[in-house]
Amino acid sequence: MDFSGLFAALTTPFDAGGSFSPADFRHNLHRYNQTDLAGYVVLGSTGESVLLSFKETDLILATAKDAAAAQKKLLAGTGAESTAETIARTKRAAELGYHAALVKTPYYYKPVYKPEVYLTHYRAVADASPIPVLLYSVPQFTGVSLETPEIVALAEHPNILGMKDSSGVVQRIVEVVASARPSFQMLTGSASVVEPALSAGAVGAVLALASAFPEKCVALFQLHRQKMYEQARELQCKLALASKKVVSESGIAGVKFVMDLRGYRGGVPRMPLLPLTEGAKAAIAKVAANLEPAAAAKANP
Amino acid sequence: MDFSGLFAALTTPFDAGGSFSPADFRHNLHRYNQTDLAGYVVLGSTGESVLLSFKETDLILATAKDAAAAQKKLLAGTGAESTAETIARTKRAAELGYHAALVKTPYYYKPVYKPEVYLTHYRAVADASPIPVLLYSVPQFTGVSLETPEIVALAEHPNILGMKDSSGVVQRIVEVVASARPSFQMLTGSASVVEPALSAGAVGAVLALASAFPEKCVALFQLHRQKMYEQARELQCKLALASKKVVSESGIAGVKFVMDLRGYRGGVPRMPLLPLTEGAKAAIAKVAANLEPAAAAKANP
Amino acid sequence: MDFSGLFAALTTPFDAGGSFSPADFRHNLHRYNQTDLAGYVVLGSTGESVLLSFKETDLILATAKDAAAAQKKLLAGTGAESTAETIARTKRAAELGYHAALVKTPYYYKPVYKPEVYLTHYRAVADASPIPVLLYSVPQFTGVSLETPEIVALAEHPNILGMKDSSGVVQRIVEVVASARPSFQMLTGSASVVEPALSAGAVGAVLALASAFPEKCVALFQLHRQKMYEQARELQCKLALASKKVVSESGIAGVKFVMDLRGYRGGVPRMPLLPLTEGAKAAIAKVAANLEPAAAAKANP
Amino acid sequence: MDFSGLFAALTTPFDAGGSFSPADFRHNLHRYNQTDLAGYVVLGSTGESVLLSFKETDLILATAKDAAAAQKKLLAGTGAESTAETIARTKRAAELGYHAALVKTPYYYKPVYKPEVYLTHYRAVADASPIPVLLYSVPQFTGVSLETPEIVALAEHPNILGMKDSSGVVQRIVEVVASARPSFQMLTGSASVVEPALSAGAVGAVLALASAFPEKCVALFQLHRQKMYEQARELQCKLALASKKVVSESGIAGVKFVMDLRGYRGGVPRMPLLPLTEGAKAAIAKVAANLEPAAAAKANP
Repeated sequence: MDFSGLFAALTTPFDAGGSFSPADFRHNLHRYNQTDLAGYVVLGSTGESVLLSFKETDLILATAKDAAAAQKKLLAGTGAESTAETIARTKRAAELGYHAALVKTPYYYKPVYKPEVYLTHYRAVADASPIPVLLYSVPQFTGVSLETPEIVALAEHPNILGMKDSSGVVQRIVEVVASARPSFQMLTGSASVVEPALSAGAVGAVLALASAFPEKCVALFQLHRQKMYEQARELQCKLALASKKVVSESGIAGVKFVMDLRGYRGGVPRMPLLPLTEGAKAAIAKVAANLEPAAAAKANP
Repeated sequence: MDFSGLFAALTTPFDAGGSFSPADFRHNLHRYNQTDLAGYVVLGSTGESVLLSFKETDLILATAKDAAAAQKKLLAGTGAESTAETIARTKRAAELGYHAALVKTPYYYKPVYKPEVYLTHYRAVADASPIPVLLYSVPQFTGVSLETPEIVALAEHPNILGMKDSSGVVQRIVEVVASARPSFQMLTGSASVVEPALSAGAVGAVLALASAFPEKCVALFQLHRQKMYEQARELQCKLALASKKVVSESGIAGVKFVMDLRGYRGGVPRMPLLPLTEGAKAAIAKVAANLEPAAAAKANP
Repeated sequence: MDFSGLFAALTTPFDAGGSFSPADFRHNLHRYNQTDLAGYVVLGSTGESVLLSFKETDLILATAKDAAAAQKKLLAGTGAESTAETIARTKRAAELGYHAALVKTPYYYKPVYKPEVYLTHYRAVADASPIPVLLYSVPQFTGVSLETPEIVALAEHPNILGMKDSSGVVQRIVEVVASARPSFQMLTGSASVVEPALSAGAVGAVLALASAFPEKCVALFQLHRQKMYEQARELQCKLALASKKVVSESGIAGVKFVMDLRGYRGGVPRMPLLPLTEGAKAAIAKVAANLEPAAAAKANP
Repeated sequence: MDFSGLFAALTTPFDAGGSFSPADFRHNLHRYNQTDLAGYVVLGSTGESVLLSFKETDLILATAKDAAAAQKKLLAGTGAESTAETIARTKRAAELGYHAALVKTPYYYKPVYKPEVYLTHYRAVADASPIPVLLYSVPQFTGVSLETPEIVALAEHPNILGMKDSSGVVQRIVEVVASARPSFQMLTGSASVVEPALSAGAVGAVLALASAFPEKCVALFQLHRQKMYEQARELQCKLALASKKVVSESGIAGVKFVMDLRGYRGGVPRMPLLPLTEGAKAAIAKVAANLEPAAAAKANP
């Protein structure tokens, strides 16, 4: 299965009462369906998965499956702290027709999570999963990181097909590409280093920023594919600055706000995440206008 | 409400099939009831709370309430990532008769969890909670830490009565004691610095080690209370070495194994936590024998 | 040799042209000589040792030796990155009549500084040194930390008599006291946890704050010695708040400024250290006035 | 002045008695002169600069200047903790004919080294320096990092022409390229991400690995320049694996040993750096043989 290309990490829209809003979610997906995004990650970190109830996550998975265009790859975030719970969620995603499971590292008991723990956990999940498994390492949130030796060892498993690395550490991509079986697919989760990561051998990216700027993100991937490196580098620079301001500094509230600016259904995140201050909104609006002048104007007539 | 004294952070025993075992849990509690422990923390980090389903947590809370002696203080770990979910769990604990809620910091979206986020979160929880709230900071697991300014600010809330600080940073206890209202109660979660923490003004401790060695832990507290500082210091040294080997190096698997050695129902933790290697078991058995020679012999006839 | 008691970490005063000022240095020492300080650390971190030339350090060592009262213990900071240079500096301090060498960990090549490196380095220094060696770990500056196993191993060396631990980690003091030979002497370098450290078995402290408030710091030590624990705890709280504002937040510039307030010769630090802003000065003056109302008034008529 | 290309970070060879060996140093330089290296960094981290006396550093600078071919760019590592000392060293390098000064961040008093400190320090050095200044950030050794806002601000100074960033963080290169004036030149110090860094807009690299494999490192740069990206990526993978084993895991001892294997004068580092174990030597020899089979064979007949 091919996971190359540019994936959007979907946000979860809430209605005025704070409940998941299927209508808003469908609205966003219908627009994304018209882009050249390779697919969607549902219930990733950007989707506020850790703030959702079990009931909500099931509805979100089902809604996304229903609303997504047939040719889009669907990746479900199914990583829980417990191995058994991770397997249960992965099976449910398979049942609903997802193409693969994106399995975040367990991370709470980090002082005892030695590499052996990750090897055992991921092998158990991959053995039990009816669909391919992608590793997912996101140290800025979890405080733990999958390192090259574990990744290379896990790449031997026939049902572990790749990895999303959100660390932004390009060195790890180089090392894994140099050491793992050639068909193992690396995706970066960092909008700041998509072009360097592709240069290093990554096959694609999963980006929160693509929920607001799918065309720009896809363009970066395509420029690289078409070997238009100078243009790719220029667009990468712009996306890096936008990502820093929107995603790194403001998190999900920033992503959702810039979605609102661009006519998607963003809204506000769930507490304890706080809505943006007016100052942060103004700074983000400026960044958005720089990145996509026409679109921003259209969204803010 | 007085939270001084020595509390045990309870483990969650599983049966051979991996399900929560109420009988084993009751067995442990009945023995703890005969000690001078001030009370119990149910569903803390030591209780593998992040590895349990909602259904299990409810049963565990109810079982502990039922099995605990009347004079023991009952603290429920109710902190979830979401503010709303934290409030729901806290209300449930209150309904079941718990004396207080121990509310771990949210921690996943740490890059945007500025102090304002913690102030807003904890105030919302404390406003909604029918029972007193204790803050809970455990950076070794969460990667975030409540710092003195936030703690002092939150100590102003009439329903936030104290804090369990598992960082082991004695400086913070000194600072909070120096700055917060005098009735704000600090508890340390680190068995290595109970005596220094009490010297600094903490009123007690919540210890995983007390699940295996309740009498020793209580003795340390009582020696300090009775101003027998030299003896307290000597016992502190022993407990620090035991805690390092059992709790810091081996985590919950270590605590459960040493409970087995001492005749409690420990068992193995849930995956991804792995059972101890034979080498780790031997090292822990040696530590346990040093700390409590007679008891260890009794448990291993 | 007995290193118990309260030591001042001396600052290095500069004249208007930025050169070391022996007269100002003597002025300070003459006042310190009249206190119950156990002794002085010359060329420690507080002495801006890393900002001084070789020629200056030699003059400073000689001046301090000359100006110090006979009964004061003199410790020279002699740790350099190179083992050979550390030995040379240590021999020079011995020649000048210093009682002991305080040897900071090497730290630059930290990725390869495994415990074996520290064991080899310190043993070579201690073998070559004509005077006793004290280990010195100051992770806030060096980014490396001596851990309990290395410390306990080095405590076996007949010429390594103790350690200054500036980490503020009281747990390490407990562990070392529990594990090292009983005559090994631990000193804390953190003004925030002097009382807890003494409770844990430390024999004394080396404090930058004692350059400005020697009597207060000595009083804390003496209250503990006299088993007046409640008063010790109260004074500890005050010193912790002062230390945080003066030492942790403002560094050497803060220490020197509060020395000026109290009639010592502080002055400004050497670049790249910057002088305090007016805002920082005002905050420190307030803290100083709280801690020692009369003295501050006297210094600011 | 153009700093593009591949620079070798030179090691400092010692003779049997542990003194700097000018003859061995010249031997190495004469061989490097025959390669397409753009130039040399003298007294960088790889040169054990922090382990050398002032007298030695002056001799090393002079020797390198004398032995280097006329067309090679010469960069002197002149960063000291003190601003004044940094300026003095920089002036001396200028006097000796160096083309530029590579100025490492001060780092000891890191808790108070706010961005303002770095701005003031670097501007003072650049104002006083007769030769161009390159910023140098090497967080793995210093524990501090120059961040994008400071770099962009300093890039405005007419005598600060570029930066060597050894952090390996490609995102920072992207950000600086996106934000600083176009003529500001970024060099990476990480052999693992040369190709991604060049893709991101860096103009070159300074590598310890180039002291042992200058031709391979130059080849990587040239492949990129010639837009032979696929071959560049393949060579990058090999160099990343070699760099990890040699430089990251074994440090200067590793670099020097692999130099010995390849017929350069490596030798052993100065204490506290320890020589390699036999196991580490074998692992490195294997890596070297993989990277350059013929040369390794030649060196080990």
